[in-house]
Amino acid sequence: MQEQKMPVVAVVLAAGFGTRFDENNPKQLVSVGGKPIVCWSIEAFENNDRISDIIVVVNERVEETVNELIDEAGYAKVRAIVPGGAERVDSTLAALDLLKQAGIPSGAKILIHDGVRPFVEERSIDGCIDSLDQFNAATVAYASTDTILLTEDLGDRKVVKSVPERPNTFRAQTPQAFRFGTIVKAYELAAADPDFHPTDDTRVVVDYLPDEPVAIVDGSETNLKITTPSDMPIAEGIARSLDPEHAKEEAKARMHAVFAEAFSQMHSR
Amino acid sequence: MQEQKMPVVAVVLAAGFGTRFDENNPKQLVSVGGKPIVCWSIEAFENNDRISDIIVVVNERVEETVNELIDEAGYAKVRAIVPGGAERVDSTLAALDLLKQAGIPSGAKILIHDGVRPFVEERSIDGCIDSLDQFNAATVAYASTDTILLTEDLGDRKVVKSVPERPNTFRAQTPQAFRFGTIVKAYELAAADPDFHPTDDTRVVVDYLPDEPVAIVDGSETNLKITTPSDMPIAEGIARSLDPEHAKEEAKARMHAVFAEAFSQMHSR
Repeated sequence: MQEQKMPVVAVVLAAGFGTRFDENNPKQLVSVGGKPIVCWSIEAFENNDRISDIIVVVNERVEETVNELIDEAGYAKVRAIVPGGAERVDSTLAALDLLKQAGIPSGAKILIHDGVRPFVEERSIDGCIDSLDQFNAATVAYASTDTILLTEDLGDRKVVKSVPERPNTFRAQTPQAFRFGTIVKAYELAAADPDFHPTDDTRVVVDYLPDEPVAIVDGSETNLKITTPSDMPIAEGIARSLDPEHAKEEAKARMHAVFAEAFSQMHSR
Repeated sequence: MQEQKMPVVAVVLAAGFGTRFDENNPKQLVSVGGKPIVCWSIEAFENNDRISDIIVVVNERVEETVNELIDEAGYAKVRAIVPGGAERVDSTLAALDLLKQAGIPSGAKILIHDGVRPFVEERSIDGCIDSLDQFNAATVAYASTDTILLTEDLGDRKVVKSVPERPNTFRAQTPQAFRFGTIVKAYELAAADPDFHPTDDTRVVVDYLPDEPVAIVDGSETNLKITTPSDMPIAEGIARSLDPEHAKEEAKARMHAVFAEAFSQMHSR
């Protein structure tokens, strides 16, 4: 009897309403480097051979467009496009419910990714998959080059409360990866807590399964989360640096400028 | 008798050796958007009317070039270019010593800035100066859009230790601003501590003057610290977005392309 391979499922969360962005143009659909942000995010997993399945979580405002984009691009691993909820947590739960219904084994590897982090590197995705052989939870994170300040309120101002040692401060990125049984259990425990409103899946494990170590997987500065329109110039810069055509185009533009100069001199004589 | 205005001094730290950068091309001298990084940093203060004086701290490898750049640009507020030390702390101390020798009053406002943060916004500089009317210490910081993870070592891996509430997590940027008497006192107390090796001036106040609140001043995503070559595409993207000539140049390039097309068709007939 042949051993069945354990599924490695990417969940791409694209259900945010991006209230800090243009209301009429949801940020996951905005193009960067000529491609909608959500497509960059899906392709990162579509193009990784070790990912077996992709689930995309959407809201009602983007559902139709995301459906069309996926059809047009012909992504072969997208198994379902499911409606998410008001909070990030609800969107994760929607995906976990679907996987439960599909009877996925508790040992399956689940990588949950922010749909507005278009530039996740393949080595980070691989790092998540590998880390789950040793740990039941892992998260991509990027060592903070900035010193992190923990603050508290003093009247109407924020003031510094403490300054943790820099080598132990990381910026959480995504994907965040879990054995299916582990993330389901953490969310079940959390559901019983009325004060539960995490912004991050890793935190659900850290808070509700405190004995379960969550491993850090190397992220990158470029794996940024597009949150406000002011992130767009940075995102365009990264997209440009990733484009192999970029150097070619620049050379062409320089050549054109030389031709144009010759052309204009010829006509001015 | 006319009241003499209290000095507002910017200290630009450009003494880093940037070991994560090209060794033969110190990062503070690398050009971004056609201008050396250190010049962007100096100009941010040169162009702010409320800054009275600028001190630039250098190392022996960049001293001559920085001197030339400052002469060429004709920055009018640069009062001294002083040699720094091996550690960041030594560079801050070199500047404080110079200010002591100059007999600067203890109420003077001192803004200490990383020379490799070229894109600090004027409103952040103003925010520092204003905050020192209410507090003796303030730091520019940017609310973290990423969840911050505090880590610990587990064997050869980093694992998550705790996840602070996101609204109370900030990425320290610069300038970091102090009444002169406050930062001098903090460094005097720190000098007596053999374990003293902070990477950040704010931390010296937080650790050695714990009763002195340090106010948070709004920074920006674009006020990044250029640390590794991988930061350069992002920096170039920001520089491009700040350049008013950018749009004009793009239009010109398109026009050239049209001419060149016409030129090449003419010759292929």
